[in-house]
Amino acid sequence: MTNDNQQPIEGQEGEKKLSKKELNKLARAAKKAEAKNKNSGNENQQEGNENKDLTIDVSEGLYGSYGLIQSGDKKDITFTEVKNINSSLDKQNVWIRGRLHNSRVKGKTAFLVIRQRIHSIQALMFVGEKISKQMIKFVDSVPKESIIDIFGEVSTVPQEIQSCTQKDVEINIKQFFVVSLAEPRLPLQIDDASRKQDDNNELSTVNLDTRLDNRVIDLRTATSQAIFTIQAAIVNSFRNILTEKGFVEIQVPKIIPAASEGGANVFTVSYFKGSAYLAQSPQLYKQMAIAADFDKVFTIGPVFRAEDSNTHRHMTEFIGLDLEMAFKFDYHEVLEVIGQTLTSIFKDLQNNFASEIETVNKQYPAAPFKFSEKPLILEYSEGVAMLREAGVEIGDEEDLSTPNEKLLGRLVKEKYDTDFYILDKFPLAIRPFYTMPSATNPSISNSYDMFMRGEEILSGAQRIHDPTLLTERAKHHEIDITKIQAYIDAFKYGCPPHGGGGIGLERVAMLFLGLHNIRLASMFPRDPKRVSP
Amino acid sequence: MTNDNQQPIEGQEGEKKLSKKELNKLARAAKKAEAKNKNSGNENQQEGNENKDLTIDVSEGLYGSYGLIQSGDKKDITFTEVKNINSSLDKQNVWIRGRLHNSRVKGKTAFLVIRQRIHSIQALMFVGEKISKQMIKFVDSVPKESIIDIFGEVSTVPQEIQSCTQKDVEINIKQFFVVSLAEPRLPLQIDDASRKQDDNNELSTVNLDTRLDNRVIDLRTATSQAIFTIQAAIVNSFRNILTEKGFVEIQVPKIIPAASEGGANVFTVSYFKGSAYLAQSPQLYKQMAIAADFDKVFTIGPVFRAEDSNTHRHMTEFIGLDLEMAFKFDYHEVLEVIGQTLTSIFKDLQNNFASEIETVNKQYPAAPFKFSEKPLILEYSEGVAMLREAGVEIGDEEDLSTPNEKLLGRLVKEKYDTDFYILDKFPLAIRPFYTMPSATNPSISNSYDMFMRGEEILSGAQRIHDPTLLTERAKHHEIDITKIQAYIDAFKYGCPPHGGGGIGLERVAMLFLGLHNIRLASMFPRDPKRVSP
Repeated sequence: MTNDNQQPIEGQEGEKKLSKKELNKLARAAKKAEAKNKNSGNENQQEGNENKDLTIDVSEGLYGSYGLIQSGDKKDITFTEVKNINSSLDKQNVWIRGRLHNSRVKGKTAFLVIRQRIHSIQALMFVGEKISKQMIKFVDSVPKESIIDIFGEVSTVPQEIQSCTQKDVEINIKQFFVVSLAEPRLPLQIDDASRKQDDNNELSTVNLDTRLDNRVIDLRTATSQAIFTIQAAIVNSFRNILTEKGFVEIQVPKIIPAASEGGANVFTVSYFKGSAYLAQSPQLYKQMAIAADFDKVFTIGPVFRAEDSNTHRHMTEFIGLDLEMAFKFDYHEVLEVIGQTLTSIFKDLQNNFASEIETVNKQYPAAPFKFSEKPLILEYSEGVAMLREAGVEIGDEEDLSTPNEKLLGRLVKEKYDTDFYILDKFPLAIRPFYTMPSATNPSISNSYDMFMRGEEILSGAQRIHDPTLLTERAKHHEIDITKIQAYIDAFKYGCPPHGGGGIGLERVAMLFLGLHNIRLASMFPRDPKRVSP
Repeated sequence: MTNDNQQPIEGQEGEKKLSKKELNKLARAAKKAEAKNKNSGNENQQEGNENKDLTIDVSEGLYGSYGLIQSGDKKDITFTEVKNINSSLDKQNVWIRGRLHNSRVKGKTAFLVIRQRIHSIQALMFVGEKISKQMIKFVDSVPKESIIDIFGEVSTVPQEIQSCTQKDVEINIKQFFVVSLAEPRLPLQIDDASRKQDDNNELSTVNLDTRLDNRVIDLRTATSQAIFTIQAAIVNSFRNILTEKGFVEIQVPKIIPAASEGGANVFTVSYFKGSAYLAQSPQLYKQMAIAADFDKVFTIGPVFRAEDSNTHRHMTEFIGLDLEMAFKFDYHEVLEVIGQTLTSIFKDLQNNFASEIETVNKQYPAAPFKFSEKPLILEYSEGVAMLREAGVEIGDEEDLSTPNEKLLGRLVKEKYDTDFYILDKFPLAIRPFYTMPSATNPSISNSYDMFMRGEEILSGAQRIHDPTLLTERAKHHEIDITKIQAYIDAFKYGCPPHGGGGIGLERVAMLFLGLHNIRLASMFPRDPKRVSP
């Protein structure tokens, strides 16, 4: 046993046989060689080498390490992206910068796979007139995941290369330079991290904690790249759809003076000589923007929940896609806008990110997400009736437990064939104090939740815009009025009726893709037990 | 003296003479009247009233209060936006919902101004066949800033109405309903808050603290509406430009395990049984995304600084527009992208938000923002030379003080006629430990700041992507390596050379518009002394 993790570990799949120290030595030697031959990078200058004595390295200047790139040397090189390399470039020379995804050296040949995000290409070299044994040895010494530049000729292949995304071509390497060396021992293997969890699978996979502890490597898998491309697309789509509808994006504070939503589950911040809190939602500020005439607003940012919930779908910090809008007479004006926004996002993903969805599904299989053009709206009482019909005992004013929520999702899917639906008119008793009571039934509220694959992704409502009723309802909930006075005061100078909702970004990504854990849809997740990296 | 702020204050400009209680009574009475006449909202149904006894209110059902809008009554009304009302609608009837910006009742006539965000229109009524004295009295009783619905006929006017944005038309009111009542006493007047600060001006203006304490009202001014429209446009432009360039938007945590940038000026959060910190920048996470192959990323979110700086340009929480990208050989590849992004934002604002800029300048006069298509890049040493030429004593490795920064801005403006420039190649000694030293001069770094009107809006650099050099530089800065081990480890498995920067959103908004205080460009600013509302 040794604690020196600079030492190579032998016998592991794909591990290299040189320590980092030795590698650096090799790299330095190669760099020296390169320095001698100032015109490396320009293959024509190298042709003269061909007829030299065989004891001379015929590849001198054609491989090595750049050394640390400190912006001192602007090389005039045009790089080609892997995704753009195909048989149309046959016989052409290209420069590629990418990760050394894989390398197999056997005697006089080297087979490499170069990776760029989700794309990969095969590259090879044989000892010959311009490729020396020393060069092959150097290539063999470079650990996987190092960043390298290769220069070579594109060549079409007779048979499809199954292991790469670029299936019809390979690169005949002429030059090979190290840009940034990886340590020889990786805490996890990209191939293992990309593998589908499968009881029949004897190859190793990577557990969630190892992934998250080494997120920089885990995020390099095609699956992770696709998940976060989709996450970015959801945000972009949300924003574009609402901007199109005349919403204004606002920025609201995360440090707040009082725990706005009751006081439980809030993180405390030391603020100079006093204390403050982290916002559990942008609720108050969205509503203040409405009272300040912004009419329709959205805001995208972190929300913080100090809940000690250790589940597959709770985090202590997540991104809220929040919106709020004035309406004229009925909160269904709002509900419709939110419903349309979500179905537009789903359509955008299915139309424009099909290959990313497919990539994710290879590792995490899931049925395609189903939804109807016009979202299904059920009243809460109808949901309760469906659950009762299925044998569940549930009171009229009882909240949905997580299992009941999921069961209802399955029942709705069976009956209406949709993974997305809206549950409207929740009992007043189980909603926050600021929720507007129904005009017609005092035990019901003008509020709604939205669900994807049987899990809640949005909670929303018409808010009380009258300070007198708001005070009354807060008192009914036994909330200390002095602590929410600023909230109440915001409505004293005229405020239009309004409603809105907050969407959990990571939940939408998780449930749209059918992932089993929300942490997979958060780049650097936070939960009660994890606050790093 | 009375502490009852439910009581009206007499003698103030534009104040009403009725208490809120009395108003509510009036409103209830009107609502009762309305209820009697179920077809209110349909003027044809009212015609029969004309020949009735004069003791009857001829306007019964044509005015009053809707009462609390609880979504119980979906009225079939189509509203017209104020900005769309002009002489092309002459003689047509329209419904408008807006703020009662102003009302003057004299005897049998009422002149109102209805406001919608930055637009306003004049509306009037005279006692007559369909307008009763009672109706005028009711209108007179409604406080400014209440939200009202009016129905009336558009009528072109012979002379331009100077006080409104809709100058060629007015509305002859036929119906008037209260949607949401404002309290009669406003903590500040919209007109005062909209007024230019001017020594020769005898009319009252509103100081910053009063504005911020009552932000819901202050944000209603045309100036505030325009400032935050521009703020949203900057964010939107930043995002669109970078998305177009192939950047991926990422979401990174704000709760972090250690104070990444040295330890000073960081807010502590209680995190379950332990402690955590609020991120001072997304630096580490942007860089991890680069090490994780995302290639080019941006992230928009709050950053937190526990600095006890009480200046016109510091806040404890602001929005960072951050970007980071891998480059091939020289960090100027990054610098150029950032420079282009900023000039594209400026162009977008000048081309598409000219009327908002003009609106802001009316209250806060400023010279138009000048910039060149290709940004001016000066080396730090050139900046120092210009300052010395102007008589400033400054060392080669000395940082720019705020006065020197501003002076240099003026010198640059004089010499190059630009309000935007880039200062490149800062001394290594005055930059953070993770800044890449220059390849050619050990006392210089590959770093830059960008300035608008002589104030810094962005700081950026090539980062050290090599863990050995990073460790060395951290030790040189006497930073505890154990606290930043996760940061260093992120670069152990291969990382491309990269650089980036962070832009302060509110500073860009403030300086582009030439505002004198950053708090005007933050919807709900936070500083050492202000954490509310």
